[in-house]
Order: sequence, then C-alpha cells, then structure tokens
Amino acid sequence: MEEIRRVISVIVLNEHGVLSRISGLFAGRGYNIDSLTVAPIPNTNLSRFTIVTFGSAKVLEQIVKQLHKLIPTYKVIESGEFIEKEMALVKIPLSERFDGLDAMLKAYNGTITNSGEDYIVVMVADDTTRVAGFLKAVKKYNPTDIVRGGSVAMDVQ
Amino acid sequence: MEEIRRVISVIVLNEHGVLSRISGLFAGRGYNIDSLTVAPIPNTNLSRFTIVTFGSAKVLEQIVKQLHKLIPTYKVIESGEFIEKEMALVKIPLSERFDGLDAMLKAYNGTITNSGEDYIVVMVADDTTRVAGFLKAVKKYNPTDIVRGGSVAMDVQ
Repeated sequence: MEEIRRVISVIVLNEHGVLSRISGLFAGRGYNIDSLTVAPIPNTNLSRFTIVTFGSAKVLEQIVKQLHKLIPTYKVIESGEFIEKEMALVKIPLSERFDGLDAMLKAYNGTITNSGEDYIVVMVADDTTRVAGFLKAVKKYNPTDIVRGGSVAMDVQ
Repeated sequence: MEEIRRVISVIVLNEHGVLSRISGLFAGRGYNIDSLTVAPIPNTNLSRFTIVTFGSAKVLEQIVKQLHKLIPTYKVIESGEFIEKEMALVKIPLSERFDGLDAMLKAYNGTITNSGEDYIVVMVADDTTRVAGFLKAVKKYNPTDIVRGGSVAMDVQ
C-alpha cells in the first residue's frame, strides 16, 4: 500500500491528558508520527497540534475520524492548503572553515544566532522542504548537533 | 508550592508508541505540558523531544527520574544551559494598515513569508521570550490566526 505524507492540524481544549490521548490514538493503530508540535494558542484555552505522519490513506482516514470523535477536539484540518514551516538549529564547530556559509545562510533564510568558545549555532526557519535541503547542504561543515523543530502549519484555505 | 518553568530535552529511539509513553508519564502525574515538539534527528534512528512544563520542583524531579528509566530513552537533559528558540506564524488581514510593521519585523527577526488575496502571513523565529513579545506587539494588526511552534532547545553546555 502506498504510504503518503499527511499534515494534520488539530485544535483541542487544554485539558488534562489530551496529548496522551492523541498520541495513544496513533500508537494504537500502529501509525507512526514523524513530527509533532503542540503549543498553546495565545489568549485562548486551546492548543494546536501539528502532526506529520506517513501511512496508508485508509488507516489515516480512520485516525482522522477518531480525532473528530475525540473529546475535546475542537477542529481537525487534515487536507487543504497549508503553509508548512519548520525551524532547525545546527551547531558547527569553530574549527571548521566557513567558506560559503554566509552565502548558504542567505539562500536558506538562516542566521548565526549564538556562538560559544568553540562553536556557532545557526538557525534556519523556512518551508519544511527547504529546511531539509539546508540540512543536507550544511553537512559539509560537519555539524556536531542538529535539532529540528517539527512542522508548524497554518491553514490558508 | 512554587511552579517553575522547565525545559526538558529527551532523546529516544524511534520506537513504536514512544510519544504515547512519554505523554502518558506526564499525564499520569497530573503534570501539564505547555509545549512539546518532537522531530527525527537527521541520519539516525533517534528522535528528540523538547518539552516545556510548569510545575513543582518535586514532581518534576520524579518525572525526570521516570524518563531516565523509560526504555528506550537515550538521554534526558533537564537542566544546564540551553538555547531556546521558537517559531510563530501570524496571519494578518490585508485590510489592516501596516504602519510600523516593517520596523517591528526588523526588531523581531521576522519576515513576510506568504500572502493571499486578503491576508499576509508573517513568520518570526527567535528566542522564546522574544517571540512572546512579538505576539503581544503584533496584536495591534488584529491577526486572524496565530500558530506557535513550541520551544526548540539545543544543549550548549
């Protein structure tokens, strides 16, 4: 069966154990979550989940149905047009030669955000596919640590 | 009891149901997760969780102990020096007057990342406290949608 990538955005009431229930729903169906972010929606008692999954269309359909039933789910957006952005932090040792790094940062919307005695930290925030491209390109500087933030999606239907 | 804010970074093997187990651990102790991000660590079979919580020091200590026990947890970093960054997307109707928006974006490391027939989408990626400041300041443009990405932390001890 063909595995498809799907971004699901779920708005829920900030209730006790809601993350546990949502993740249990995926785990119970053997469905892997590739990335997940959850954060409060400012000035509300709601939180928004953004979940990226890979799996068959059929199982995903079942999960979305379950999410709709899941009290206190407020809204499930599982198709339509999204803006999908991601952040990544990359730690590069100062012992590296930084030839071309500035150009790469410009190309990928990146900045040097912190530095220490023996490292710099670079931050990129861009479309998920572009961040993936940056992480590939930045390998030449032998990063010692990479943190991806997971997809953040906004509905623009 | 004083509630403290704590950022916990957990590295785990990509195993079935690990998100469910971790979130269950917090829920089981009545411990609220403020924000959570999980994403794969490139070129490994590991994922990294970044969890922001508020609660008493004592309960948090118990949770961290449990996390250490939780197979297949690889590493728990719950103190020390972090870089903590966050991304937010803000949708602003085109009917607004954008006086001062450019200056605000410059001040907060923001960009206009997308636009539609009747809206623009602004992205900021900066220290968590600064993103909170931006979200306060941007209210004057009457945003119709705000998506926060949750904290992304990198250990720089």
